[in-house]
Amino acid sequence: MTHTIDAGAYRVHIGAGLRHSFAHTITDVAAAHRYAVITDDHVAPLYADDIVSNLSGHGRVSLHIVPEGEAHKTRDSWARLTDEMLEAGHARDTTVVAVGGGVVGDLAGFVAATFMRGIPVVQCPTSLLAMIDASVGGKTGVDTAAGKNLVGAFHEPAAVLVDVEMIATLSLPQRRSGLAEAIKHGAIADERYFRDIDTTLEALQSADADATLDLVSRSVQIKADVVRGDAREQGKRKILNFGHTLGHAIEHACGYSLLHGECVAIGMVLEATLAERLGVAVEGTATELERVLRRASLPIRRPSSLAPAAVLDATRLDKKARAGSVEYALPTRIGAMAAQEAGWAMRVDDAVVLELLTDL
Amino acid sequence: MTHTIDAGAYRVHIGAGLRHSFAHTITDVAAAHRYAVITDDHVAPLYADDIVSNLSGHGRVSLHIVPEGEAHKTRDSWARLTDEMLEAGHARDTTVVAVGGGVVGDLAGFVAATFMRGIPVVQCPTSLLAMIDASVGGKTGVDTAAGKNLVGAFHEPAAVLVDVEMIATLSLPQRRSGLAEAIKHGAIADERYFRDIDTTLEALQSADADATLDLVSRSVQIKADVVRGDAREQGKRKILNFGHTLGHAIEHACGYSLLHGECVAIGMVLEATLAERLGVAVEGTATELERVLRRASLPIRRPSSLAPAAVLDATRLDKKARAGSVEYALPTRIGAMAAQEAGWAMRVDDAVVLELLTDL
Repeated sequence: MTHTIDAGAYRVHIGAGLRHSFAHTITDVAAAHRYAVITDDHVAPLYADDIVSNLSGHGRVSLHIVPEGEAHKTRDSWARLTDEMLEAGHARDTTVVAVGGGVVGDLAGFVAATFMRGIPVVQCPTSLLAMIDASVGGKTGVDTAAGKNLVGAFHEPAAVLVDVEMIATLSLPQRRSGLAEAIKHGAIADERYFRDIDTTLEALQSADADATLDLVSRSVQIKADVVRGDAREQGKRKILNFGHTLGHAIEHACGYSLLHGECVAIGMVLEATLAERLGVAVEGTATELERVLRRASLPIRRPSSLAPAAVLDATRLDKKARAGSVEYALPTRIGAMAAQEAGWAMRVDDAVVLELLTDL
Repeated sequence: MTHTIDAGAYRVHIGAGLRHSFAHTITDVAAAHRYAVITDDHVAPLYADDIVSNLSGHGRVSLHIVPEGEAHKTRDSWARLTDEMLEAGHARDTTVVAVGGGVVGDLAGFVAATFMRGIPVVQCPTSLLAMIDASVGGKTGVDTAAGKNLVGAFHEPAAVLVDVEMIATLSLPQRRSGLAEAIKHGAIADERYFRDIDTTLEALQSADADATLDLVSRSVQIKADVVRGDAREQGKRKILNFGHTLGHAIEHACGYSLLHGECVAIGMVLEATLAERLGVAVEGTATELERVLRRASLPIRRPSSLAPAAVLDATRLDKKARAGSVEYALPTRIGAMAAQEAGWAMRVDDAVVLELLTDL
């Protein structure tokens, strides 16, 4: 069974075992003379050969491999991939195929966005986090010494192809990290989905294909609904940042020793508490989030090694930071976000946030 | 007198002495908390101080200077400018102000296109070439070792501000290089404009403000009309490439020892001759182009030091190159381009082009 979700200008195809027909779908939605498959050295041995050989019947194919990990999501990797593609003879009639987690998707997406001013990319996410989050929305980019995703472009994929079987090769902490984003999708937009995740946590953590297919489909649908009509993050799309303002700050402050989803879990509890303190969220919202995140074995408190001031400092790197305040997307309850006058996010004074971090 | 031309999503403002009100217009069309002025070390001493000090009344301003010349239109310059802006505290609430020729416009435009996934840029072109060509159309990018503009993005400016007085500081060859593009605009779209340039060549070469204002306004209008509705160069926009397929090849083959407009002049004569040979253009089209280009003291023949095969080889770098053929936008006569079945450009076999280069 394949679920197909309309994400505006492109579609997300989700199924079990779908990787065996990736080449068919790629040549259907983004037919090209040449294909550049970009992946990392963890994913390549698992899936690259099959995808390359299936594509080879449809045009010239080259394979480009980057080392695994966020440390390689850099301008240097981007330049090297671009140069490799130029040397391999790629031009405007090329489609990029990104096979990997969020790092590969962001990096390969940015290569495609800037190669000869933009060529198509098909995203084939292999991590749960990338399947339900990074692959939808068209955000691409790389990190710099100053912070994550500070350089990039909006470049929507021609299609997103998700084979839920691929997550079986992920470690349990990585799967849980993906679950944190799914829990966020429930928390911001769909209380029933939030409850359903709670009741299927065991199947999800053991990478059950049916449970995962349902999870990815519902999360992608929520994200696609939010992103459609606000591709540039001017309005409602901001609700997707719930848990991320403080989550990103914690991620940066701990030197990326925690997984993204772990930081988002802590960030959601903090920001839900902030929402309660500000009178935006009903009482109990943070406690309910805590309960489900804890059941998913996700952390819910800032590591004691991180000083509150260090986390606050790191929020200054947020793209929406202004002098003395940062923007927060806040819930009103599980399943609903506050539509602020300022447009789905509100500025909160640094002093208020510091107090929160000191207390929690 | 200021001419304002609607270029779709933004406007081009053209006037004499307009630089004194740049800050006013910038804060009107792209109000921001911070402004990053990007220029080169040739232009900076002439205009940067005024623009920075005028902007300072409206927000925090930082000045970023790159060395002059195409050799610095690189990913390294782009990364350095981005890092400088991050260090200076710029964020999504920043507007980039590009003050310079085509190199600065392309480079600063690409910085703006990719800074935190895209912030506004106001283009203030200072060379005739940039005023009538580079500033309209939203193309941004940098060069790599493999060729020009191979990395970049489409990123339309918030506005283009043209002070025609600024060209007085250009050398005569640079002004003539700009005239080549104006002659191209006449050749592809407006025979009367082509004739008017012919009759005002003396005033134009002496940088007369009225004649330049008229020239820039008419060229920008033509380019804006062509680009509107085809921002991504899928169709009619291709006619702007007249003279550029072989022009770029000559430019690359001679190691950029000739100015861009000089190469385009030679390229137009070659491609008009090609059009006559293929029966696309009426007889005499190339001769008429030759006559006017010669009056503008522009070269009309490939330097004898460049072998035909070397020029043909360099066409392989064209973004629209395919095995054995390259796309050419060809005229039917002065003032009109062929609407080919393939959409305003036709593939010409390499063998035919080699014969042309050998003969001319």
